[in-house]
Amino acid sequence: MVRVLVIHGPNLNLLGVREPSIYGDQDLEQINGLIEKEARELGIEVKTIQSNHEGQIVEAIHEAIGWAQAIIINPAGYTHTSVVIFDALEATRLPAIEVHLSNIHAREEFRTKSVTARACVGQISGFGARSYLLALRAAKAIAERSSQ
Amino acid sequence: MVRVLVIHGPNLNLLGVREPSIYGDQDLEQINGLIEKEARELGIEVKTIQSNHEGQIVEAIHEAIGWAQAIIINPAGYTHTSVVIFDALEATRLPAIEVHLSNIHAREEFRTKSVTARACVGQISGFGARSYLLALRAAKAIAERSSQ
Amino acid sequence: MVRVLVIHGPNLNLLGVREPSIYGDQDLEQINGLIEKEARELGIEVKTIQSNHEGQIVEAIHEAIGWAQAIIINPAGYTHTSVVIFDALEATRLPAIEVHLSNIHAREEFRTKSVTARACVGQISGFGARSYLLALRAAKAIAERSSQ
Amino acid sequence: MVRVLVIHGPNLNLLGVREPSIYGDQDLEQINGLIEKEARELGIEVKTIQSNHEGQIVEAIHEAIGWAQAIIINPAGYTHTSVVIFDALEATRLPAIEVHLSNIHAREEFRTKSVTARACVGQISGFGARSYLLALRAAKAIAERSSQ
Amino acid sequence: MVRVLVIHGPNLNLLGVREPSIYGDQDLEQINGLIEKEARELGIEVKTIQSNHEGQIVEAIHEAIGWAQAIIINPAGYTHTSVVIFDALEATRLPAIEVHLSNIHAREEFRTKSVTARACVGQISGFGARSYLLALRAAKAIAERSSQ
Amino acid sequence: MVRVLVIHGPNLNLLGVREPSIYGDQDLEQINGLIEKEARELGIEVKTIQSNHEGQIVEAIHEAIGWAQAIIINPAGYTHTSVVIFDALEATRLPAIEVHLSNIHAREEFRTKSVTARACVGQISGFGARSYLLALRAAKAIAERSSQ
Amino acid sequence: MVRVLVIHGPNLNLLGVREPSIYGDQDLEQINGLIEKEARELGIEVKTIQSNHEGQIVEAIHEAIGWAQAIIINPAGYTHTSVVIFDALEATRLPAIEVHLSNIHAREEFRTKSVTARACVGQISGFGARSYLLALRAAKAIAERSSQ
Amino acid sequence: MVRVLVIHGPNLNLLGVREPSIYGDQDLEQINGLIEKEARELGIEVKTIQSNHEGQIVEAIHEAIGWAQAIIINPAGYTHTSVVIFDALEATRLPAIEVHLSNIHAREEFRTKSVTARACVGQISGFGARSYLLALRAAKAIAERSSQ
Amino acid sequence: MVRVLVIHGPNLNLLGVREPSIYGDQDLEQINGLIEKEARELGIEVKTIQSNHEGQIVEAIHEAIGWAQAIIINPAGYTHTSVVIFDALEATRLPAIEVHLSNIHAREEFRTKSVTARACVGQISGFGARSYLLALRAAKAIAERSSQ
Amino acid sequence: MVRVLVIHGPNLNLLGVREPSIYGDQDLEQINGLIEKEARELGIEVKTIQSNHEGQIVEAIHEAIGWAQAIIINPAGYTHTSVVIFDALEATRLPAIEVHLSNIHAREEFRTKSVTARACVGQISGFGARSYLLALRAAKAIAERSSQ
Amino acid sequence: MVRVLVIHGPNLNLLGVREPSIYGDQDLEQINGLIEKEARELGIEVKTIQSNHEGQIVEAIHEAIGWAQAIIINPAGYTHTSVVIFDALEATRLPAIEVHLSNIHAREEFRTKSVTARACVGQISGFGARSYLLALRAAKAIAERSSQ
Amino acid sequence: MVRVLVIHGPNLNLLGVREPSIYGDQDLEQINGLIEKEARELGIEVKTIQSNHEGQIVEAIHEAIGWAQAIIINPAGYTHTSVVIFDALEATRLPAIEVHLSNIHAREEFRTKSVTARACVGQISGFGARSYLLALRAAKAIAERSSQ
Repeated sequence: MVRVLVIHGPNLNLLGVREPSIYGDQDLEQINGLIEKEARELGIEVKTIQSNHEGQIVEAIHEAIGWAQAIIINPAGYTHTSVVIFDALEATRLPAIEVHLSNIHAREEFRTKSVTARACVGQISGFGARSYLLALRAAKAIAERSSQ
Repeated sequence: MVRVLVIHGPNLNLLGVREPSIYGDQDLEQINGLIEKEARELGIEVKTIQSNHEGQIVEAIHEAIGWAQAIIINPAGYTHTSVVIFDALEATRLPAIEVHLSNIHAREEFRTKSVTARACVGQISGFGARSYLLALRAAKAIAERSSQ
Repeated sequence: MVRVLVIHGPNLNLLGVREPSIYGDQDLEQINGLIEKEARELGIEVKTIQSNHEGQIVEAIHEAIGWAQAIIINPAGYTHTSVVIFDALEATRLPAIEVHLSNIHAREEFRTKSVTARACVGQISGFGARSYLLALRAAKAIAERSSQ
Repeated sequence: MVRVLVIHGPNLNLLGVREPSIYGDQDLEQINGLIEKEARELGIEVKTIQSNHEGQIVEAIHEAIGWAQAIIINPAGYTHTSVVIFDALEATRLPAIEVHLSNIHAREEFRTKSVTARACVGQISGFGARSYLLALRAAKAIAERSSQ
Repeated sequence: MVRVLVIHGPNLNLLGVREPSIYGDQDLEQINGLIEKEARELGIEVKTIQSNHEGQIVEAIHEAIGWAQAIIINPAGYTHTSVVIFDALEATRLPAIEVHLSNIHAREEFRTKSVTARACVGQISGFGARSYLLALRAAKAIAERSSQ
Repeated sequence: MVRVLVIHGPNLNLLGVREPSIYGDQDLEQINGLIEKEARELGIEVKTIQSNHEGQIVEAIHEAIGWAQAIIINPAGYTHTSVVIFDALEATRLPAIEVHLSNIHAREEFRTKSVTARACVGQISGFGARSYLLALRAAKAIAERSSQ
Repeated sequence: MVRVLVIHGPNLNLLGVREPSIYGDQDLEQINGLIEKEARELGIEVKTIQSNHEGQIVEAIHEAIGWAQAIIINPAGYTHTSVVIFDALEATRLPAIEVHLSNIHAREEFRTKSVTARACVGQISGFGARSYLLALRAAKAIAERSSQ
Repeated sequence: MVRVLVIHGPNLNLLGVREPSIYGDQDLEQINGLIEKEARELGIEVKTIQSNHEGQIVEAIHEAIGWAQAIIINPAGYTHTSVVIFDALEATRLPAIEVHLSNIHAREEFRTKSVTARACVGQISGFGARSYLLALRAAKAIAERSSQ
Repeated sequence: MVRVLVIHGPNLNLLGVREPSIYGDQDLEQINGLIEKEARELGIEVKTIQSNHEGQIVEAIHEAIGWAQAIIINPAGYTHTSVVIFDALEATRLPAIEVHLSNIHAREEFRTKSVTARACVGQISGFGARSYLLALRAAKAIAERSSQ
Repeated sequence: MVRVLVIHGPNLNLLGVREPSIYGDQDLEQINGLIEKEARELGIEVKTIQSNHEGQIVEAIHEAIGWAQAIIINPAGYTHTSVVIFDALEATRLPAIEVHLSNIHAREEFRTKSVTARACVGQISGFGARSYLLALRAAKAIAERSSQ
Repeated sequence: MVRVLVIHGPNLNLLGVREPSIYGDQDLEQINGLIEKEARELGIEVKTIQSNHEGQIVEAIHEAIGWAQAIIINPAGYTHTSVVIFDALEATRLPAIEVHLSNIHAREEFRTKSVTARACVGQISGFGARSYLLALRAAKAIAERSSQ
Repeated sequence: MVRVLVIHGPNLNLLGVREPSIYGDQDLEQINGLIEKEARELGIEVKTIQSNHEGQIVEAIHEAIGWAQAIIINPAGYTHTSVVIFDALEATRLPAIEVHLSNIHAREEFRTKSVTARACVGQISGFGARSYLLALRAAKAIAERSSQ
């Protein structure tokens, strides 16, 4: 059974509160519910965490070594600046998928650049909570292929 | 039944020939086969075209009006420069999804910027042929939601 | 009698459909009607073409040699990137006038730069369909002066 | 009857003296004569001023409120730097048309950017004194439309 | 009674120790004393916190929801880089005032840009501890106006 | 008794007319009334001037020497470009406070940079007319401290 | 016998007409004559095409696979912007030589950068029609070496 | 007898007051005394003016036509931004010499660029009041040479 | 006896795991062993900490005051962005030495700039674990000199 | 008989030693042998020099005046920075051809710009030692044409 | 008696040959004659050298220590790039005057920046050979003032 | 026995004279004495040279081939611009260590970039003469490791 760690970055604990016109009106618990439901259907064991702390996200990535076969990460505001998360993803050598609720390519200039995506297999952005569900599907395929 | 137009941009007719380490070893016919299979399973009517001509891509987008409920587009080399495709996507007002085989965020600097994604709902990049299959799933959800 | 070639660039075939708040609600046929009416009143013989293809626009410019005494061109999305249209205009040595429906100086940063206008006598932008009518008037004066 | 204020910016009092190969050999009085003649024919009441002072141009724009229905302005050297004239044009909410004798898009790099045109309806550049005459025609149409 | 949360960012716990020629010789306790005294006189209930952790500052901002009517924040070194604090301030929708002890506009180039101030009502910088006291006064007015 | 010169820069004579959603609906006379009232209460003798002319603002700053103990200045559109006002403020060696009605850090990119604030003690921006009142309070404290 | 495809890019069909002081006064037919003559002498089988269409150039490159052992290409105005031609050249894996009539390093700033040359073996620019003849010689040597 | 106009730009009326460590401790009257003395010795008729107004400086330049054979100008803070003074100097076609008291190449980055010097014969900077005296000597030679 | 605090920044707890071709195959415990051995030989009392949290690193620096005479810091991924660590180092006024395992000048462009080194005495980069040992030697000399 | 000076720039004396995968495995003596052989066949008198000193290269260019009819120069590392060699080439007014062993357009970003090629007739890069042989052929044609 | 070293930089040995429209038609010997004549009249002992070698210029500057009281230097092409000459001038602590024959502010963009002038008292550019003569006069005054 | 070449770049012959607050008060002979003493203690045979000539430094690097096992180089002012020294270091394939007396990361912006360090194993900067001594220690370890 494939094991996937899902990391929600800073401010995502406010989902449903924060600018629903951009981020949708589901709160994080609901999104985690959707993720777990999809994971069950796909035969994925999933663990979700949320943190506003760059250091905690780094450590969550470290701890994925040995347990997870893939990481799904929404680095939120850290996407555009965090060399530290980039380094952590590189270091684990686990396949990672970057996910964004909104389409970062269609927002402020500074949001169109991703520092962290360079250390990922791919990026999915713009589909709200569904971005995570699509990422699960992709993660499963990647994990299965690399474990063959 | 949802109708989706899939547009393959320039040089994608060479798939399987061109740098397989980056783009995979499936040729375009095989990828279209996968797309059609996935579409059937999802209950999507799909039409695929490939063109190396910016103007033809623009016109394919125009012609989607009235037939398609969503567009999936891999603008390939035009991604980074084509204001004209950006304008065409804006003009149709159809939801569009940008797709890339490779992770454009992890390649040459000039490939990390997408001009065309600003006119899209979202972007999926880095999953090889699977990028299209994930996009189909996303397109279906978007089309159904907007037709309610 | 002065002969003027009017070239409508990419996506302008969608006029009336595309973002009417920016581009007005007249379609291209109506605009061509206005152009022809104004031309008749000014004693100008006018030919209009529309193309979404950079190469066709280049060739239309080439073919103006020997027939037209002036060119009016709305390069639309090619305005900001096309060295090729710039070169074509330089090569014909015909006086050209660049026209825009909207005020390109008041839109996105990337639209404020014109590559093609460097090869033109002047530029008129922001007056909707009237931009073309003003350009006809200017073209006539220029053509008459240079044929003296 | 439409009322239009025409503002000539700095150094334009030297017209006919200054680089005639670029700016033509008519002096400002002759150009004002042409403007007044065209205005009469179009049924426009016109007032012209010239100033080399940024502050006076700002105040001329302020004073247009209540009298003029449109402004035609050639900000000359202030075009490329004056936030203050930009703010004044924004503040009056009158439709303004920016005019240039020469084609600013084909000159030194620093002349291709217009700060002030962002606060205008449109821009006409490159037709010598005729730029003003075309602007009068455009101003009339705009004023009539907005007074309906 | 208006409730205001005052957030002191990183290194401010060293005040009085760190470069007194720039930051003054009062320590943080003394500044908090001045803030509390001013708050009492203005009829403001005030809570102050200091943190060197970006994530803790984000969470302090989150926790202000439901208690505070305004936030006063000195993001110190995070001012110039933290998209995450910017996002947190946007998300709470509480009026925030950015405060700096020194005049950030007169220091190193990289300190003249504020990422976080874009999510604030305004900024006060350069008046030492008094910057906070002025901010309290401003916060009270804003809170009262928005609660009418 | 502390003497403070308040300088209102270009276009501020239009206050109440110009974009009230950004600048508020009070006119300059009303703001000057508020300033004078606050000054009386704080025991400040205040003189206010408004000018649209860069040169007049420079000279008003010069004339402050010998009379004022502090200057409050809203350079408006000159904030972002005027080396000349920067030089004048430096030359007088009087403490100056830069004031803005709107939050310049949250507007167009070109408004986030202040040339003139480098020559000031500090900057207060974003609080409408209240920005001036807070500046008076700061000016008094600075003037009293430096006269001890 | 070595087979070489020679591709003339946009506007080169106007040779002899367009700015002879820069591009020389030979027309394209004459240049093709020189190319064919030199090819015969060098024992090269040569095919020449000219196109103003980016897409056609891409497809000409594709079609070279299986026939040509080397490509000589003058991408003209596409040199500086076409990621699509760059991708096509990369994909064919044929040795390509970029050729320019004029010295692109000594012209406008934007002409000094070549996007397409990155996918070539080398570049020859500045020798008029002779640039092609030198390229034939180089192509022959490269083709012979790689076929050993 | 050679006639030279000497223009002192903004803030130079404060000389002797303003930062003497940079600009020296002579006031403008003393400097004008030195200029007049040197002029007499060199057989130059000299006229000096000082203005803080960009527009007045432009007009002083205009008025030099017909009287002066050369202009010496210290544009001070306008040096780095004024297209308008640049245009005025170009328009008069009189030889102009730019002068600075301090060495602008050794100060803040923004002071190392001169917009106005492009329209001058040469520039002398860094020698205090002596910069003007050296300029007089140069002006005489230039005027005599061009009047031969 | 000289006391030195050694701070290992983010991801360094993964040493030996992470990209050994770049960072070597020693783990952090082994490196700390080497550091302690070298310190003993040099007569240095050493304390080592590792943290992935920017805030904790800041606080470790604060706590060095009063205990350490020098700081050796490898800020890893924070090197290139952390104004906050820069401020903390400045505030302590302790001599600090920046250390890197790999040669940051020979890696990705964004790694060649160090924000934090500006607040240090010097930087040693590229010698693997030996970078720390060299830094100990340098720290001892600096601490001894400044305590004379 | 045509006389050509061939200048090999810095580090080229190491050819055959230095990175053969980029520069080939021929040493400079062998390349000079090829050059001399080709020259003899083409009826060119050739002189070759190599220098690592910018000043010597400048002087070699000076000394070409009066002897050579053309210069072939490989400025190697000076290509990208040397204004001094650029000036020397301009000053001699001899036709010069810039030559590179490797394709500078396909290497590090800083190698894609040539300062010196602006002063040349053309540039040939990417063909190893053959670049010189092609340049000889071009030099002969240029020298013969200009001596007619 | 004041002693001044005059350094002529690279390519100046070609004066009279090189582009006389820019640099005048006097050769270096004639200019040195003028310099020596002016020096005699001003009571200056002068030594002149010319070098095309950056290292020799550096050493000439070093050797000025102990002999010269001032340096006049025309670094020519090294002006825009040479940190090494900048460092040498800083190191000698002798007053230096930078001189240019042509007005560097009115030429190519890359010539408007001077690296070396930051280490000089001032700069004189644009007056041909007279630039040196004016510099002698300035050097004398500076040397006399600093020796008092 | 390990053999190391130490290269002192331009202006370092002035050490002890030049800005001692930045570079210390030891002269180059004293520093070479320290280097030789340390080398003896470490069992290193050392050769030191100093040159102000870029070309000589290049040649010293070339000559190291066959004798030295490592190079220590302080390129001084050439650090920031010399592609030629970068190429020479690359070509020798000897391990090189870049050394600076002062901390280049804490000085003028243009000194924070090193062109030459990209071709080195590592860089040590900021420790005065001790930078060389630390480099010797590092060089020995590297040379011993690579000769195993």
